[in-house]
Amino acid sequence: MSMAEPVSRWLERVRAQRPLVHNMTNIVVTNVVANALLAVGASPVMAYAPEEAADMARIAKALALNIGTLDERVVSAMLIAGHAANAAGVPVIFDPVGVGATAYRNETATRLIESVNLTVLRGNQGEIGFLLGAGGEVQGVDSLGSGEHLPRVMKEWAAARGCVAVATGPVDYVTDGTRVFTLHNGHALLSFITGSGCQATGLIGAFCGAAGALATVETYADACVAALTCLNVAGELAAGTASGPGGFQAALFDELYRLDGVTVDRLARVDFLEV
Amino acid sequence: MSMAEPVSRWLERVRAQRPLVHNMTNIVVTNVVANALLAVGASPVMAYAPEEAADMARIAKALALNIGTLDERVVSAMLIAGHAANAAGVPVIFDPVGVGATAYRNETATRLIESVNLTVLRGNQGEIGFLLGAGGEVQGVDSLGSGEHLPRVMKEWAAARGCVAVATGPVDYVTDGTRVFTLHNGHALLSFITGSGCQATGLIGAFCGAAGALATVETYADACVAALTCLNVAGELAAGTASGPGGFQAALFDELYRLDGVTVDRLARVDFLEV
Amino acid sequence: MSMAEPVSRWLERVRAQRPLVHNMTNIVVTNVVANALLAVGASPVMAYAPEEAADMARIAKALALNIGTLDERVVSAMLIAGHAANAAGVPVIFDPVGVGATAYRNETATRLIESVNLTVLRGNQGEIGFLLGAGGEVQGVDSLGSGEHLPRVMKEWAAARGCVAVATGPVDYVTDGTRVFTLHNGHALLSFITGSGCQATGLIGAFCGAAGALATVETYADACVAALTCLNVAGELAAGTASGPGGFQAALFDELYRLDGVTVDRLARVDFLEV
Repeated sequence: MSMAEPVSRWLERVRAQRPLVHNMTNIVVTNVVANALLAVGASPVMAYAPEEAADMARIAKALALNIGTLDERVVSAMLIAGHAANAAGVPVIFDPVGVGATAYRNETATRLIESVNLTVLRGNQGEIGFLLGAGGEVQGVDSLGSGEHLPRVMKEWAAARGCVAVATGPVDYVTDGTRVFTLHNGHALLSFITGSGCQATGLIGAFCGAAGALATVETYADACVAALTCLNVAGELAAGTASGPGGFQAALFDELYRLDGVTVDRLARVDFLEV
Repeated sequence: MSMAEPVSRWLERVRAQRPLVHNMTNIVVTNVVANALLAVGASPVMAYAPEEAADMARIAKALALNIGTLDERVVSAMLIAGHAANAAGVPVIFDPVGVGATAYRNETATRLIESVNLTVLRGNQGEIGFLLGAGGEVQGVDSLGSGEHLPRVMKEWAAARGCVAVATGPVDYVTDGTRVFTLHNGHALLSFITGSGCQATGLIGAFCGAAGALATVETYADACVAALTCLNVAGELAAGTASGPGGFQAALFDELYRLDGVTVDRLARVDFLEV
Repeated sequence: MSMAEPVSRWLERVRAQRPLVHNMTNIVVTNVVANALLAVGASPVMAYAPEEAADMARIAKALALNIGTLDERVVSAMLIAGHAANAAGVPVIFDPVGVGATAYRNETATRLIESVNLTVLRGNQGEIGFLLGAGGEVQGVDSLGSGEHLPRVMKEWAAARGCVAVATGPVDYVTDGTRVFTLHNGHALLSFITGSGCQATGLIGAFCGAAGALATVETYADACVAALTCLNVAGELAAGTASGPGGFQAALFDELYRLDGVTVDRLARVDFLEV
């Protein structure tokens, strides 16, 4: 019951491989997701046209889908990209932003989950709790909390689906259906910038993209733990120099760029939960 | 002829209520509008699909419409959201970005103004002057100035419409049809970052969203004065530490986040104009 | 074989004229392109609707087209805007972002190049090499390098087309079909922020927009050299104060804003290549 490798090994792998991550993300956060991926050493691309969604997904090392500002055309393109990624063995990360807020988001999230084989589902605790029926609540795209049984429900869902479930919050939960990781790094300022969750989804794409073509669900769970820990530790370091959320977002990129393996392994606070 | 409460009371209200602001804004500024709202303590959501525009507007505490990068689908969704907000008593703020630059913007602005009951109309002086027939001029989305009678024309328009009119510039004008406020805070660097006006519109949404369900046009005018004063005072403070517009935008978020009531009331420069 | 005027003269011209640049750029970079243009002293506008594309292009001093996140509607609007700009004598800059990555990007880039009279074609070396058949390679939207004959192929293409070709990279190439400039300014951090190439395209728009209505291809080439040199020198100055890519992007805007003619002329490293 532990990670097969330290977080630092995953960070090295991302920087050495520079994986291409195809992001179909929302218009609020495209810039910061791209910059977070560049900062950590990955190669982001954004492509939304149905005409090229399959081509781009196939040449990518990971596909990250995010419905933060969904519309019908982009959802169509996401389905095309998701199917192409599935056929090519490219891992797919899905971020159901704002699910629980409107019927359209709920229907779209369900449609994507039922139609595409996901490698990772990542949302905040309100979103994941709502989506898995564990009593999550959202206000717009912000979590208002989740039921107390969230980790257990996530574990069962992940086991049934054969994929990884991730719910971020004051403590992050990551489960592959067998293990449930609890991640204790991070900083309150992450909730005062827009798109910290979307950046997490993008980074999970990069780390899953560096996992190799034959990765198992356990390996992808480790990739998620490593990605979130890098982001959260960078957040802790950034908070040390920032005087507010504006400086914090810039410093977060700087710290992702400068993050070294010794530091991240030393600061990482990864535990397990028995549920 | 004064505000019923100090600016600081409005700031407390926003932070205590964390109002959900539904923004349908342009693709240039989505990120900074979201970050400005988070920094001041509000909860931003962006949603553009016709399928969910009404649902999101109804659960929001304010709806902010901005035609900076309009297209036909988004305008349709804006009309749907505007009508839903009207029916639910949710205040609607409209920002006619770039009106005066193209016929399409002029027609769309007129269409939105005639079809939706606005709570607040906010633009730069060129836009508002053009729209109200007071001789405003724009270059693209930048104001080239307005006629000298702008405050009087705004006051008459606001009185006839029963809503608030706001024109920002070196001095900002806010009128509810009875009072005309002149706001003297701000800094020249605000015109060297993109979206300072759009951030003003978003913040006005947050402050109007905190005004309560039975607010009058006078109360909404006070909310506008408070929102602009917070932004402008934060701008003055940010300019003190920034060495250019890049650092200034980050510092602006920091100062909105750190702004305290004593400071904002001490620095506020709100006057009245007899027209 | 030299520039007719120093870089500083071009910078003065941009600041004095404040040219309106109509950008039809991708959703990842709209904000930073607008901020780069404001910082250098130009006036950016973004407009994508087919209904207003022609009107906006006609009143602009330059039109910058960028297919980073293309879709069919925006491409239609780009064609409309391109034709209107051609008819009005407004210079058109085209940035074929990610060409080489998908068939749809290749077809769209070819369609725009064949249908619109370009003033400047600007991409990274992988994109330009691919597009002109000089052996360029891309990964998503990042250059993996180009054939060794790139400057010669660019020169021949520019001469045949009667326009300027620009390929940016560790060394930038600018050619008007007669002269081939090599630009040696810049900093490695420019490749760790998203949209540095797109910002270059926007700035080239501003400088070409300040070239005057009767500018020749040689004058536009000088404008490109000046724009890139300002950006690259600002990058060098920004790197001196930044501790990573987040701080670097903010500092880049600050340095563009503060850049003075004496400094840019002193630091400029512009050479020629005989091919």
